[in-house]
Amino acid sequence: MTVAITSLVNHQVRLAARPVGLPKPGDWQFTHEPVAEPEAGGVLVQVLALSLDPAMRGWMNEGRSYIPPVGLGEVMRAGGVGRVIASRHPGFAVGDLVSGAPGVQEYWCLPAAQVQRSGLARIDLAAGSVTQWLNVLGMPGMTAYFGLLDVGRPQPGETVVVSGAAGAVGQTVGQLARIKGCRVVGIAGGAAKCAWVVQELGFDACIDYKAAAPAGAERWDAVREGLKQHCPQGVDVYFDNVGGDILDAVLARINRRARIIICGAISQYNATSAVQGPKNYLSLLVNRARMEGIVVFDYADRYPVAVAELAGYLKDGRMKSKEDVVGGGVAAFPATLTRLFTGENFGKLVLELAR
Amino acid sequence: MTVAITSLVNHQVRLAARPVGLPKPGDWQFTHEPVAEPEAGGVLVQVLALSLDPAMRGWMNEGRSYIPPVGLGEVMRAGGVGRVIASRHPGFAVGDLVSGAPGVQEYWCLPAAQVQRSGLARIDLAAGSVTQWLNVLGMPGMTAYFGLLDVGRPQPGETVVVSGAAGAVGQTVGQLARIKGCRVVGIAGGAAKCAWVVQELGFDACIDYKAAAPAGAERWDAVREGLKQHCPQGVDVYFDNVGGDILDAVLARINRRARIIICGAISQYNATSAVQGPKNYLSLLVNRARMEGIVVFDYADRYPVAVAELAGYLKDGRMKSKEDVVGGGVAAFPATLTRLFTGENFGKLVLELAR
Repeated sequence: MTVAITSLVNHQVRLAARPVGLPKPGDWQFTHEPVAEPEAGGVLVQVLALSLDPAMRGWMNEGRSYIPPVGLGEVMRAGGVGRVIASRHPGFAVGDLVSGAPGVQEYWCLPAAQVQRSGLARIDLAAGSVTQWLNVLGMPGMTAYFGLLDVGRPQPGETVVVSGAAGAVGQTVGQLARIKGCRVVGIAGGAAKCAWVVQELGFDACIDYKAAAPAGAERWDAVREGLKQHCPQGVDVYFDNVGGDILDAVLARINRRARIIICGAISQYNATSAVQGPKNYLSLLVNRARMEGIVVFDYADRYPVAVAELAGYLKDGRMKSKEDVVGGGVAAFPATLTRLFTGENFGKLVLELAR
Repeated sequence: MTVAITSLVNHQVRLAARPVGLPKPGDWQFTHEPVAEPEAGGVLVQVLALSLDPAMRGWMNEGRSYIPPVGLGEVMRAGGVGRVIASRHPGFAVGDLVSGAPGVQEYWCLPAAQVQRSGLARIDLAAGSVTQWLNVLGMPGMTAYFGLLDVGRPQPGETVVVSGAAGAVGQTVGQLARIKGCRVVGIAGGAAKCAWVVQELGFDACIDYKAAAPAGAERWDAVREGLKQHCPQGVDVYFDNVGGDILDAVLARINRRARIIICGAISQYNATSAVQGPKNYLSLLVNRARMEGIVVFDYADRYPVAVAELAGYLKDGRMKSKEDVVGGGVAAFPATLTRLFTGENFGKLVLELAR
C-alpha cells in the first residue's frame, strides 16, 4: 500500500525558549506541517531514529560555541537515521538508508543545496544496525575513536580511564582502549552499569560514582578510592565526558605526560551557577600533562576509516554496543532528553520514530 | 688580605614550619654554622646572589609535586650564583663563577658526591651579568624559552599573551615571542610595569590588571576589555604565570587550536581555601585547544642551546632584562620573598649577598 506524500503530516519539536537549568516542558513547542514533494535535486527522508546527546543541551544556549545555537522557533537539531521516500537527486534512491542531522521531526525534506552541505550519507546495514549507526558507527563512535586515538594517543600497557563509561561515547572509548592493549577503568553511575561495563565490555574495572560513600566519607571519596585501587600505576589517559568533581579526582592521580581529553562535561550542562572549574588543574603543571578539547566534526574526512575499523570490531565480536531505544514518537523527545542528565539511560539513548 | 676559611661563619635561613597562606616570620629559623674546608672532590662556594621565585612557595608545602618539599629544619632551597673559594674538584678552580642551587645561605659546601648531582655549572660573565644569569640565562629564561617554544609553538603572526609580563619569566617570554614574529600582549600589575613592558621591551600592548575598574564594572572587566581591544584576532598562545581570574579571562578569548602553557599560578599559591579552577576550561573543548604544564628541569640537557640563543639576543640588544636586586643579606630573605606575592617586585627578584 502506498500513500501520497502530500497526505503525510510532519510532526516537529521546536525550541521555544532558552532553558535555564534542566530543560522544562515550556522550552519546547510542538508543530506540524504538511510534507512536500522534494524539488529538483532534493531528497525526502522519513526519519527512523534520532540520536539524543548531551551536547544538545549546549546547542540550546545562546552564544559562541563550536556550532551555532539552535534558533528560537527552529526545529531542534538532532542527528538521525532515515529512509529515502522520494528523491530527485542522482545520488539517492527511494529505499536508501541514510544518516545525517534531520532534527526532531518525522520527515526531513532537503532542498538540492542542502543535500551536500548537510552531510547526508548512505549507510549499510551490513556494517551495523540502524541504532548502531547512531552509536558506534555514528557521532559517538567517531568522537570516541578520534578523541582517544588522535588526542589521547594511548600506548599499550598504559592506563586509560573513561567517565560516562556506559554511555554512548564511553562504551566505545573503553573497548577501543582495551583492543589497543591498555588497562581500562570506567566510571559510571550505578551497579548495573558498572557490572555491564566489566562483564560484557571487558573493562578491567568500573567505579560506581553513585555508590554510597562509607560513613564519615565525603561524596567523592569512593571515586578517589576507586581510582587509587584500580589504577595502581596512575592514569595515563583520561577521557572526560563529565567534568566536575570526577575530573578533579582523576587529575589528582595522573602520571607524567598524561593526556586528558575534554569531550564533554555533562555534570555542568544544566548548572545555573558558574561552571565548576577543575581545582586540581595545577596537576597539569606538576605532571607536565596536557588537557585538550575535541570536536568530532574536525575529523569528518576520516570518518570512513574509523567506521571501517569499528565495524570490523563489531563483526568479529571484539566490540559490543548497547543502545537504550525509546519509543513514543517526537512527542516523547523532551522527557526522553532529560533522562540523559539524570543518568537514567543505559547505553546510547535513541528515540525511535518508525521502523 | 686573605682570611682562613675556618674563620668564616655561614648564616642560613631554614624552614621552621609549613606556612598557611602567606609565609610569616615564625615559619623561618635563622641559624649559623662554621664554614668547613671542602673534602676531597668537594667544592666550597661563596654565594653572591640568590634567585627568589614564586615556585618557592610550593616547595614549602608538604606533599607530592614535581620536586620534593623542603624538609622542616632544612636550609630553604634557592637557586643562586656564587664564586668558588676553595676546590678539591678538578672541574672547578678558586675564582670560578658558578650557578646552582645553594639554598638560602652565605656559603655552600658541596661534598664530592653532590658536585655532579647538584648541577653546579661554571658561568661566563661575557654572556651576561651575575643577575642576568639568574634571570634570562637562568631558570626563568630557560622556563620561558622551552615553555614558549616547545609547548606553545608560536607561529609568526600569531597573538601571544603572557601574564606576569614584567616578571622574570614573563619578560623573556614576551620578548622571545616578539623576536619570533608574534603579536605580543602582556598582562602586568601597575602603570609603571605596563609602560616598561611596552616601551622598553617592545610588547605591542600591556594590560594593567590593577587598573581601577570603570564605575559599575567588575574587578576583572578591565582585563577582559583589554584582551578584546588588544587581541582583535583572538589569542593563539597564552603563557600563564598567574592562574585565577586572568586565566579565565584569556580562556574566553582563545582561538581554535590555541595552546595554553601552565607555568605557574601565583594568584593561588597562598590561597588558604581550595585553588580556583578555571571556570572557562570548556573553552578548550569549543576551540579544540590545549592546556599543558611545563617543568623546566625536563629540558636540562638543552639549556646550553637556549643560553647561547638568549645570550645572543642580550648581546645584539634585541632582548633586555630587568632584575630587582635587594640587599640586606640572608636575614632579608623572608621579607623580600613576600614582595613576590604582593607584586611589589619589578623584574626578576634577586637577593644580593656579596659582590
